[in-house]
Amino acid sequence: MRKYNFCSGPAALPEAVLRRAQEELLDWGGRGCSVMEVSHRSADFVAVAERAEQDLRDLLSIPDNYKVLFLQGGATGQFSAVPWNLLGAGSRKIDIIHSGQWARKAIAEAGRYGEVNLVASAEDRNFSYAPGPDAWQQSADAAYFHYVPNETIGGVEFNYVPEVSCPLVADMSSSILSRPVDVEKFGVIFAGAQKNIGPSGIAVAIVREDLLERALPDIPRSLHWKIAADAGSMDNTPPTFAWYLSGLVFQWLKEQGGVEAMAELSRRKSQLLYDFIDRSDFYSNPVARDSRSRMNIPFVLADARLDKQFLRESEAAGLLNLPGHRSVGGMRASLYNAVPVEAVEALVDFMADFEARNG
Amino acid sequence: MRKYNFCSGPAALPEAVLRRAQEELLDWGGRGCSVMEVSHRSADFVAVAERAEQDLRDLLSIPDNYKVLFLQGGATGQFSAVPWNLLGAGSRKIDIIHSGQWARKAIAEAGRYGEVNLVASAEDRNFSYAPGPDAWQQSADAAYFHYVPNETIGGVEFNYVPEVSCPLVADMSSSILSRPVDVEKFGVIFAGAQKNIGPSGIAVAIVREDLLERALPDIPRSLHWKIAADAGSMDNTPPTFAWYLSGLVFQWLKEQGGVEAMAELSRRKSQLLYDFIDRSDFYSNPVARDSRSRMNIPFVLADARLDKQFLRESEAAGLLNLPGHRSVGGMRASLYNAVPVEAVEALVDFMADFEARNG
Repeated sequence: MRKYNFCSGPAALPEAVLRRAQEELLDWGGRGCSVMEVSHRSADFVAVAERAEQDLRDLLSIPDNYKVLFLQGGATGQFSAVPWNLLGAGSRKIDIIHSGQWARKAIAEAGRYGEVNLVASAEDRNFSYAPGPDAWQQSADAAYFHYVPNETIGGVEFNYVPEVSCPLVADMSSSILSRPVDVEKFGVIFAGAQKNIGPSGIAVAIVREDLLERALPDIPRSLHWKIAADAGSMDNTPPTFAWYLSGLVFQWLKEQGGVEAMAELSRRKSQLLYDFIDRSDFYSNPVARDSRSRMNIPFVLADARLDKQFLRESEAAGLLNLPGHRSVGGMRASLYNAVPVEAVEALVDFMADFEARNG
Repeated sequence: MRKYNFCSGPAALPEAVLRRAQEELLDWGGRGCSVMEVSHRSADFVAVAERAEQDLRDLLSIPDNYKVLFLQGGATGQFSAVPWNLLGAGSRKIDIIHSGQWARKAIAEAGRYGEVNLVASAEDRNFSYAPGPDAWQQSADAAYFHYVPNETIGGVEFNYVPEVSCPLVADMSSSILSRPVDVEKFGVIFAGAQKNIGPSGIAVAIVREDLLERALPDIPRSLHWKIAADAGSMDNTPPTFAWYLSGLVFQWLKEQGGVEAMAELSRRKSQLLYDFIDRSDFYSNPVARDSRSRMNIPFVLADARLDKQFLRESEAAGLLNLPGHRSVGGMRASLYNAVPVEAVEALVDFMADFEARNG
């Protein structure tokens, strides 16, 4: 029996997608083999790959002058790929907003190849807010501007898209496909799949074509967006099963009404949980109200000694993977697209009951 | 219904493995979610990861002073990783045997970071043999020696392990686990999974510990073996489902009798097909007898105009993925571990019948 799964990633996938994959796992569409047992260059798999790309283009209204890449690895690989692909055109300056743990990792890797300028940092208030543009310290000539629209650990989400004059790079790993986005505002959008797209082991990069010409000379082939773009993301054998599953998720998203429907659903789910937390003295969320994430909602108990009991009992009640990140403790509910509203209702019911018994 | 699948990669997986994965795809061991929907750091997944490593260690008798890494991507990523990890200790010279297409790709990438010396090349006879050690031109001070024990496209396999004084690096993507190997002869063994291990999107690297200290300073984090080793291959989110499936394959291999049994099975399967081809004037294999691959057997018809008919009819007979590589044409049967002897018997029966009708 399937339970409600609040994992921050690798996260819940739509049950309909898993069921379809299960049905055809040994015999894919009557071909007598699994989708993971065929050449990535076979006509059948190429059709899967192309449909996945087209569905993603449809979902996000990606303009024709952007390439859509399906890459090995996840966001960490792209933390290297971004500077390697974008620092070869002159300026080595990189503007980054320091918003939390995922920004920190990007900063560390980017700083090995370029000169990082922290445009703003939320470290002063323990990364509990998304810094607004008023106090930014931008470089005059940055090669690109990097930010993380949603920080999964802090539970912080930007409610605006930065307006900058250089290429804007967004690590959308944890918020992609959760609402409409104006792709033209971005130079590069990348995302590890394992939150809102598919299983871990594949990343998507959406790259404006003119940015494909800026790679550093020594860039490893496997990080090179231009080579991937020219080869239809098949310079090497791609992670075919992960690509196929991602494609099934895109189809499912279209059936659900696309990113507009996901935006409404995300608003509804997160509102339900935030409203409950805000009405309670027993639970609290530390994030500034205008920066609260719709995807990842950390919360703590007034009495942290009850944490273990809360986690034990919630798991027994069929509410999985609620522990907070090991770096911060407490609890966290991740409400990605595949988490149904019923899961949040069940969580709120449990939380109310737990409070009644222990408050 | 499952058919016989001779794909060169992503290749056939053991049916028992796929069936197990199918059974628990939505509800993994009663946990109420899929194995691909849990954190890689959860105790349940860590147990999967550790068991996979231990089983691989058991299968190949890997000594304790070797790290076993489960990495994002495939062999192409490792073509970059190898020079980036091994050229930082002084010498930039790299000895490589040019044995065919996979050696060519490794040479191209290695040559961007080091000085490649072709120890030997089989180009003089169209890569139809594995060059023996008699005419080698080794460097006095190579950082490492790279070779490809089995070339999937040419269908060429080395029947010996090179004896060299520098660290020996082997791209075992297409022959790993097909027979016992004396790991201590190697500095590094790496393999993309999608032939003899699991689905595409994961690679295994077996690295002697002292070689983890030789990385070039600018190495991208995602290629860094030492960082992966120190983090138990979880510096970033690994491809969890591919890791899990690889682990199921290792368990299956142990149940089948391990690599000794695979060696016997590979010998038997390949002998069956080679003997048939050699008895025929209708079919032929271009590879020198002492270098014939047990894994990939290319063959051509005396009359190439019959190729299309052969491929059409063999597919209709339930023998999948027999076209040769797009660079060479003809036919190719890949006989990895998961391909049962019955598949080869069925192929030989079909070939005999096709010859009787068209010879």
